[in-house]
Amino acid sequence: MTETWWLNPCKASDASAYQHALARQQQLTKPAGSLGRLEALAVQLAGLQGRVKPAMEQVWIAIFAGDHGVVAEGVSAYPQAVTGQMLHNFVAGGAAISVLAQQLAAQLEVIDLGTVTPSLNLPGVRHLNIAAGTANFVNGPAMTEAQGRLALLAGRDSARRALASGAQLFIGGEMGIGNTTAASALACALLDCPVSDLTGPGTGLDAQGVSHKVTVIERALAVHAAQRGDALHTLFNLGGLEIAALVGAYLACAQDGIVVLVDGFICSVAALVATRLNPACREWLVFGHRGAEPGHRHVLHCLDAQPLLELGLRLGEGSGAALAVPLLRLACALHGQMATFAEAAVADRPA
Amino acid sequence: MTETWWLNPCKASDASAYQHALARQQQLTKPAGSLGRLEALAVQLAGLQGRVKPAMEQVWIAIFAGDHGVVAEGVSAYPQAVTGQMLHNFVAGGAAISVLAQQLAAQLEVIDLGTVTPSLNLPGVRHLNIAAGTANFVNGPAMTEAQGRLALLAGRDSARRALASGAQLFIGGEMGIGNTTAASALACALLDCPVSDLTGPGTGLDAQGVSHKVTVIERALAVHAAQRGDALHTLFNLGGLEIAALVGAYLACAQDGIVVLVDGFICSVAALVATRLNPACREWLVFGHRGAEPGHRHVLHCLDAQPLLELGLRLGEGSGAALAVPLLRLACALHGQMATFAEAAVADRPA
Repeated sequence: MTETWWLNPCKASDASAYQHALARQQQLTKPAGSLGRLEALAVQLAGLQGRVKPAMEQVWIAIFAGDHGVVAEGVSAYPQAVTGQMLHNFVAGGAAISVLAQQLAAQLEVIDLGTVTPSLNLPGVRHLNIAAGTANFVNGPAMTEAQGRLALLAGRDSARRALASGAQLFIGGEMGIGNTTAASALACALLDCPVSDLTGPGTGLDAQGVSHKVTVIERALAVHAAQRGDALHTLFNLGGLEIAALVGAYLACAQDGIVVLVDGFICSVAALVATRLNPACREWLVFGHRGAEPGHRHVLHCLDAQPLLELGLRLGEGSGAALAVPLLRLACALHGQMATFAEAAVADRPA
Repeated sequence: MTETWWLNPCKASDASAYQHALARQQQLTKPAGSLGRLEALAVQLAGLQGRVKPAMEQVWIAIFAGDHGVVAEGVSAYPQAVTGQMLHNFVAGGAAISVLAQQLAAQLEVIDLGTVTPSLNLPGVRHLNIAAGTANFVNGPAMTEAQGRLALLAGRDSARRALASGAQLFIGGEMGIGNTTAASALACALLDCPVSDLTGPGTGLDAQGVSHKVTVIERALAVHAAQRGDALHTLFNLGGLEIAALVGAYLACAQDGIVVLVDGFICSVAALVATRLNPACREWLVFGHRGAEPGHRHVLHCLDAQPLLELGLRLGEGSGAALAVPLLRLACALHGQMATFAEAAVADRPA
């Protein structure tokens, strides 16, 4: 392991599988292009998985949770204790992602990077206790370099477990009261955007709350302005433990060859950090949905990402990505199981 | 049976189940509104099904096929024989909707209202042979009143079979070379729109082909202008046998209390006709997707419909609705299975 494992090359897409899949699509009994985006999606997945008929049956969902010191500034509608309470809800089966994982027959693992309740010891949760949440980044770095590196590795460890289990698709989810503030700050620093463009209500701030959140982020950006050009240290300065873990997971998936389905605003910002650290990871990232958080649209645009769903979601937990899993599975089934014009003796249109 | 069965009242939504479902949504362990459109969808389905926890497991897919006399004017990229060939492909399992029905564990029935190959006798297909396709509506009515009534009844018969089988969701699909021409003509007549606004490439016309299609439809509208205010006779004059069957199926579902998931452009035009004949059917219609056919957007707008997916689909066969089924199922699972704040001992935000 080098100290900068995230710079290691990403796995290359299989050009032969891609070309064969493309040729197959054009022979299926439907007007060319009539399955819209599902056609290109199936072909992309074929290239990534190195098989003409890709499959998305084995799905791994990892929820990364962490608390945020910036909550002290009054940027969230919910009390910070909710992060720990939701960890219990995830493993007890009552949370949205728990229900979705069960419906999708996906593996669900829950990783506590560090909350304000370090005494938590919940069966079924991996408590890493890297820190008791991040520090308030208005006053200094959210995490130390050592903490940030541990969080990145925690993401890689999850991706490695996914690989070992035979996962064909990796979904990272997040939980952390205050984490839209961290994500907005990170995105503004990386994209050099006005803070108000990328800051929204999160779980439910009113207009006054959003305005206060903008002020808090502007103060933080001023504090950390000197390291703006450095994506890694911007992540450590303004991110969250769970966001760093997502970055590590996405990069490890791209290196190990597991397709990633990216969830909402916070996960998309993690994806943005990952592409800044190692641009070749981009082709392994499929985007599940465009959420209600106003900044999501711009972040997706900067990633040249066209998400599959747009349903006004703003929950996190990986829920929007999970909701898109059936589309990936059905795209693969259509691609793999439809008859060709020759097989079905159906006339194609004149060339 | 009266002669105008389609005017019979539609089943009313259950206000008590609706209100209880609405209250339940607000207690689930997530920020209020964070599941976006899936929340209102689950509550709507609860009202329609008359149960606080709705279910969408039993899905009925009926494909209605018919040929179109207007194809003689050169309005399609495919030969007319494809309608019959695809009937075989539907029951043989090679078509897109066959694969989707199998993946969704949905019942699939295939109904041939009338093709240019009346000698077809395919195991698994209900051949009704109402006519050898419609007449060319540039020269006169597409179907006689007797033929149109038979097609409406064929749709109702399918809805009745769905009801008898315990279906919780009805999807109508269509197959018929030339049927975007019929659908555009119908929509223009009902919405009083310029033909070029609602006419597109269908299965793959080029710009010149679309322009010719516009001219053909303009001629047809002039021929049938006298009956424009009469939705039923406009359907018989300009529609197709499979479009009339969809209209009948949608209306019967609304009368019998089966939720309908509407597919693409042609099905949405059938839904428009249904709402003109019996406006109360509207609340039973959920819209699966916004397709690539340019006129679809305007038709959906006129129906005040917000479809669940937008993936650039333009296949028909009910495929876009089928692709949205998992979203309905997952919306129901989230609504029915998530823990409440009280059950999970999670703090809600201050009121």
